[in-house]
Order: sequence, then structure tokens, then C-alpha cells
Amino acid sequence: MTTIVDNIGLLVTNDPEIGPGTAELVDAAVIIDDGTIVWVGASRHAPAADDRIDAGGRCVIPGFVDSHSHVVFAGDRADEFASRMAGRSYSAGGIHSTVALTRKANDSALRANAARLIGEMRAQGTTTVEVKSGYGLTIEDESRALRIARELTSETTYLGAHVVPSEYADDRDAYVALVAGAMLNAAAPFARWIDVFCEAGAFDVDEARAILLAGQAKGLGVRMHAGQLRESAGVQLAVELGAASVDHCTFLSGADVDALGASSTVATLLPGVEFSTRQPYPDARRLLAAGATVALATDCNPGSSYTSSMPFCIAVAVRDMGLTPAEALWSATAGGARALRRDDVGSVRIGGRADLVLLEAPSYVHFAYRPGVPLVSRVLSVANP
Amino acid sequence: MTTIVDNIGLLVTNDPEIGPGTAELVDAAVIIDDGTIVWVGASRHAPAADDRIDAGGRCVIPGFVDSHSHVVFAGDRADEFASRMAGRSYSAGGIHSTVALTRKANDSALRANAARLIGEMRAQGTTTVEVKSGYGLTIEDESRALRIARELTSETTYLGAHVVPSEYADDRDAYVALVAGAMLNAAAPFARWIDVFCEAGAFDVDEARAILLAGQAKGLGVRMHAGQLRESAGVQLAVELGAASVDHCTFLSGADVDALGASSTVATLLPGVEFSTRQPYPDARRLLAAGATVALATDCNPGSSYTSSMPFCIAVAVRDMGLTPAEALWSATAGGARALRRDDVGSVRIGGRADLVLLEAPSYVHFAYRPGVPLVSRVLSVANP
Ligand SMILES: [Zn+2]
Ligand SMILES: [Zn+2]
Repeated sequence: MTTIVDNIGLLVTNDPEIGPGTAELVDAAVIIDDGTIVWVGASRHAPAADDRIDAGGRCVIPGFVDSHSHVVFAGDRADEFASRMAGRSYSAGGIHSTVALTRKANDSALRANAARLIGEMRAQGTTTVEVKSGYGLTIEDESRALRIARELTSETTYLGAHVVPSEYADDRDAYVALVAGAMLNAAAPFARWIDVFCEAGAFDVDEARAILLAGQAKGLGVRMHAGQLRESAGVQLAVELGAASVDHCTFLSGADVDALGASSTVATLLPGVEFSTRQPYPDARRLLAAGATVALATDCNPGSSYTSSMPFCIAVAVRDMGLTPAEALWSATAGGARALRRDDVGSVRIGGRADLVLLEAPSYVHFAYRPGVPLVSRVLSVANP
Repeated sequence: MTTIVDNIGLLVTNDPEIGPGTAELVDAAVIIDDGTIVWVGASRHAPAADDRIDAGGRCVIPGFVDSHSHVVFAGDRADEFASRMAGRSYSAGGIHSTVALTRKANDSALRANAARLIGEMRAQGTTTVEVKSGYGLTIEDESRALRIARELTSETTYLGAHVVPSEYADDRDAYVALVAGAMLNAAAPFARWIDVFCEAGAFDVDEARAILLAGQAKGLGVRMHAGQLRESAGVQLAVELGAASVDHCTFLSGADVDALGASSTVATLLPGVEFSTRQPYPDARRLLAAGATVALATDCNPGSSYTSSMPFCIAVAVRDMGLTPAEALWSATAGGARALRRDDVGSVRIGGRADLVLLEAPSYVHFAYRPGVPLVSRVLSVANP
């Protein structure tokens, strides 16, 4: 049973065989068979199909690939956010308050909250999402978070090294050993990736190296948080270890930029973080000029970036990070796919997953041109995100 | 036939009899009779009603009052936007291209486009909207735009003085005379307000004064665009003429701020404009400190701000203009009502219009805490926006 989506005014394929970058087609059609794309081309040349979806001249894009989120948690931190915006300190807040609430929550509450957020993402065009643990920080709570995440997505990331929990404040070496040992053993069956928050106040470069190498030895792919608050040797460690992605990249040295440009490690930028914390934005143009691959993701989490909206991230990346609308769209789709080392998503090409998003707009430029406006009119995807 | 909305976790009333600012109630209920609010208070004290809407613990706010939009036009300027973001000049663009397309469009196309945008606004929580003319710039086209706007809202504004059209480029005095004369006569029956774009490249202060005085003599209320690109004597002219609002206020002298603080002229800020043009943001705190009333509006138009989203404007105003989440919410509701000299909208109080917006969130703080996320779950309003 085949379905044709035709009368597509503008189709973003991201297919290098069609052209560079967004590789756009006008007056296009796509044929889907059992969730897989089997034909892409000009509407007038399309073969027959069993069923038809009329795109009505709309722009159609590949579903967004949100390669960085933390949606398994309980509670929110709206009061902490409001205090930060008012320039007041907020002693009760921070990640430790989310850890405490997450540990106390039962499985079904955690699952429901994560599913709600992934549902929001999907309604805004996201069809692939990565989900990290990192609010459990015990053997049981980290493996539980990953087990729940795995019910919702195949892109699960073990982040026991999110922060040293309070109970290990006086013995961080023991916590690092736990993360790289028994906790990793319990988490690995539910995880595809391992990640470390490599930043002052979290884990230093030596700790990050030990944890990531242990994860690699268990067969997990490497990704990393680095450069959020200041320049860090974590960026070059990520490249050295062949990480799929290093995320934040807000503060980068010239050598960091060169290392990213010369590697296949993706620089994943998280516009919601700078928006929500009033930090300066990273310079995406500098990365592109060095030859680096740039992805955009939400970092959806209750502390530093509680947006679930890839369209919002695109708008901010265009205004404040120097990406063109086409570059931002590519980074939010094909860039995210590269950051997850996936070639079946993030593009519209034969053999790929049929994740298509129909826009209530003639062009994806409208994501930045019409910020905040819900422009996703229909999401076609048979797969879980 | 009365309806109770109960189980409201957090109710924003903006009712000065309840408290200052957002005047919030917890565990509240509202009773509506024929589109009018007839009771507000604690859920446990609510009298019986014929029908019931369970807010499910959600936050409920007054509908947004978007006091500045230009939604009667044809075409878009996405290419011009993309060029601006890429730092390229774009010779074919600008307001004159929208004027040309608007003049060519038939009534039903203009009506459909305006209705589409007002529908978007409503889905995002806006229940009162002001609509300006200003893309016609002939007697027939300005009165046509206002006639169409009047079908959609009672808050219509005559903006023949948007820009001097190309055909009057060599005789601007004649155009000013037309705007203040025959065009005003044709437009006034469909307009509540008169507005002038008082800025270098548009109309100077003497021209603005002549046009606004002519409008006042015809019974129209005064509002003004000023201070978008540089400081301008237009702000103090607006105060002198008793304008309901002066809009943009991006560049203000100390004397402008003092004049606004000492007057009842509202300072309406338009965050979408600075976002979409990469201009610096106005300092709302300076205005509040001087005692001015601040409103937020979208300025929805195809050139400088094509957002229709008041939630987006709130998020930007909190991040970049210094408003707290509560101040931003007030400015987007009660502030907009003041800017339109309305006391039946923008608040939840007995005798007022029952324009209630249920959020998919426990607090309005989430508009800024969760930028870009569609949080409006239901809009209750019997009236046209
Ligand atoms: Zn993160
Ligand atoms: Zn305007």
C-alpha cells in the first residue's frame, strides 16, 4: 500500500545527490511505502500510488531531529526561572531539586511527563528525539530513567555524570567510580550513548575521560556537554574520543573550532539555553567557516531550557547565532541526524524513514520570519520519535 | 444560562480591587452569563451555575489584547527577511511592494488573509485585536482596508500616514493634505483611531501633528508610531495630543520617558520588531520606573514583525526588555486594554467580557519559561476579537 504526498510547493530533501545543503525541489511529490520513502521527484513525473495526501502547495520538510533532551524528570523550576529573570538568586533551586523530585516520582508519573513533552515535540514537527538520563544519579534511578526513555525512543543516553549528587559531595572520586562501574553496567542495556557534563561545577576533563572510555568499552557511543559557561578542554577531548557530538559550544577557543572543523564530531548548539539563561549566543558562522557540522537541538529540561520547540530554536539561531534560515533548517534536521550518526532520518530520500512535516507556510523561512507562530500543520511518521 | 469555569489552579484577574498588577487568585472560579463575567472568587464559595467547564487545575488568564497589528495586506516578504538576516540588501523589498500587492488584491483575498491571521492570534490566546490600514494609500484602498478590518474587529485604525506612496514622492505636501482631507473623510466612518508613522523616511512631527489634529476633529482617537529607529519629537507630540498610546518606544530621551510617566499615554512595546530586525530592545524597566504604563503587542505585519504570537512577545519581553513574567503578562492583557482605552477587556472582573484563556501549564510564567511552546489549551470568548 503506497501513499503519495503531492502538490508540495517546496520540498526540503537535504539529499546530497540532489544538491548541497537543503537541496530543495519545487512542485514536488514523495511516495511512501510502509513508512519508507520509495520515490522523490517532480509532481508531474510521479508514478501512481494507492492513496494520496494533497500538500496543497505547502512547504514540506523532513521531521526535526532533536538530538539533545532531558525529558525524564519530575516537577518544574518555574520559580527559579522567574527569580533568575528578575536578577534575584534562588537558593532552593538547581538541578539537585529536580533530582530529589525525580527520585521520589513513580514510574508512571515519569513516563507520563516524558510522553507529554515528546508529544509536544511531535506536534511541533520533531520526529526523532534523543533522551538522556541524569536526574536519578543512583544505580536504580539512572537505569529506571533509561528504561522509561527506551520505551519512547531508541536514542537513549546515559548521563550518570550530570552532576555529583549531594550524598557524594565529600567523595566525588567514589561517584566517578560508580558512574564508570556499577551504574554503567546497570544503565548500558537501555542506552545507545554515554554523555558527561564537562563543566566547572560538574565533571573535569580527567573525570570525563575515565567515564567516557568506560562507556566506549561497553559499546556506547560518546557525546558530551562542554563549553556552556567557559572554554573547556572538554571540546577537544570529545573530538579525540571520536564523539558523535559535543553540545553547547557556547565558549570555544580557536583551537576548539579548528578541532571541530577537522573532525566528524558535530557541534550541537542549543539556542534555548542562551535564551533562557541570558548567556551570550555562540557564533555558528565561525564553526561553519572552519568546516564544522552544526546541529540545533532544544536541550529540553526544567532548568536551563524548558522549550520543546525546534521552530523556536531555528528562529533564535537565525537572529542571534548567524545561521541563514536554510542553514538553520538543515542543522535542525540533517545536522541532528549527523549528531546521532543516523542516515535514515533528517532527510527526504529513497530508503529513508518517511518522516514528513507539512507547514502552514510556503517556505521554511517562515520559522524565523514568523517566530512563535505554530506553523506545523501535519506530521507524517509511522515511527516512534 | 450561566457557565462556571472552576478548578482554576491560578487565575490572573488584573483587577485592582483584588490586588496590584496581575491580582492572582488560587483555586478560583469564574461564572459567565451571556458572554459577561458575573462572579469571580474562590472555587469553594462559588454559587451554582447551569453548565460547567473544569479547568483541571490549569492557569487561566484574561485573553490577550493585541493593540497593534497591520493584518490587512497581500503577499509576504520572506525573501526580504532572509536577505536581511544574511546581511544582504534587498532592493525590491520594502513597504512599497506590499502596497502594490495590496492594491491589486481583491476584497475576498484581503479578508481571507486578515481572517487567517486573526484566527492564528485567537488560537494563541488573543481575544481583542486592533487592526490598522496603511497598505492602500489611496482614498479607495484605505477605506476598503478599514471596511474589511471593521468586519473583523471594532478596533480599527486609519493609517493613511504609513508612508508617502511612490506616486507622491515629489509632492509629499499634497499627500499629507490628502491624508488629512478627502482620505480621512472616506476612512473615518470605518475607523475608531487615527495613527501616524512618525519616523525619518515616513512623516515628520509637523506633518504628524496636522494629520492627527484633523483626525481628532473627526472624532477619532489618536495613537502613534514613534521612536522605532531613533529618538523623535513624535513621542512628546503623542503625549501633548492625549494619544491613547505611542508605539515602538525603542529609542527614548529622558524627557520622553518623563513625559510618558506623567501622562496616561501608554508606551506600547513591540518585541517582534526588534527580534525580526536585529535592533536593540527598549528598556521597559526605565519606563515602569518613571511611572509609565507599558503594553505589549505583536505589530503583526509582513515587513518588520510577522509574528502573531503574544506568548512569543512575552517571552522576548522577559528575556530582553527587563519585564518580569507577571509584568509582561499584565502588559499583554491589561496594558493592551489601556492602550485601547477599554475597560471591558484585559481583566477578569464582574461586568467585563468573558474572554478567558486556559493554559496547558500551571502558571503564566511558562510563557517565558517555555518559549515557543504552544501553551494555550482553550480560548473562551463569545465576541469577535
Ligand atoms: Zn543538556
Ligand atoms: Zn506598526
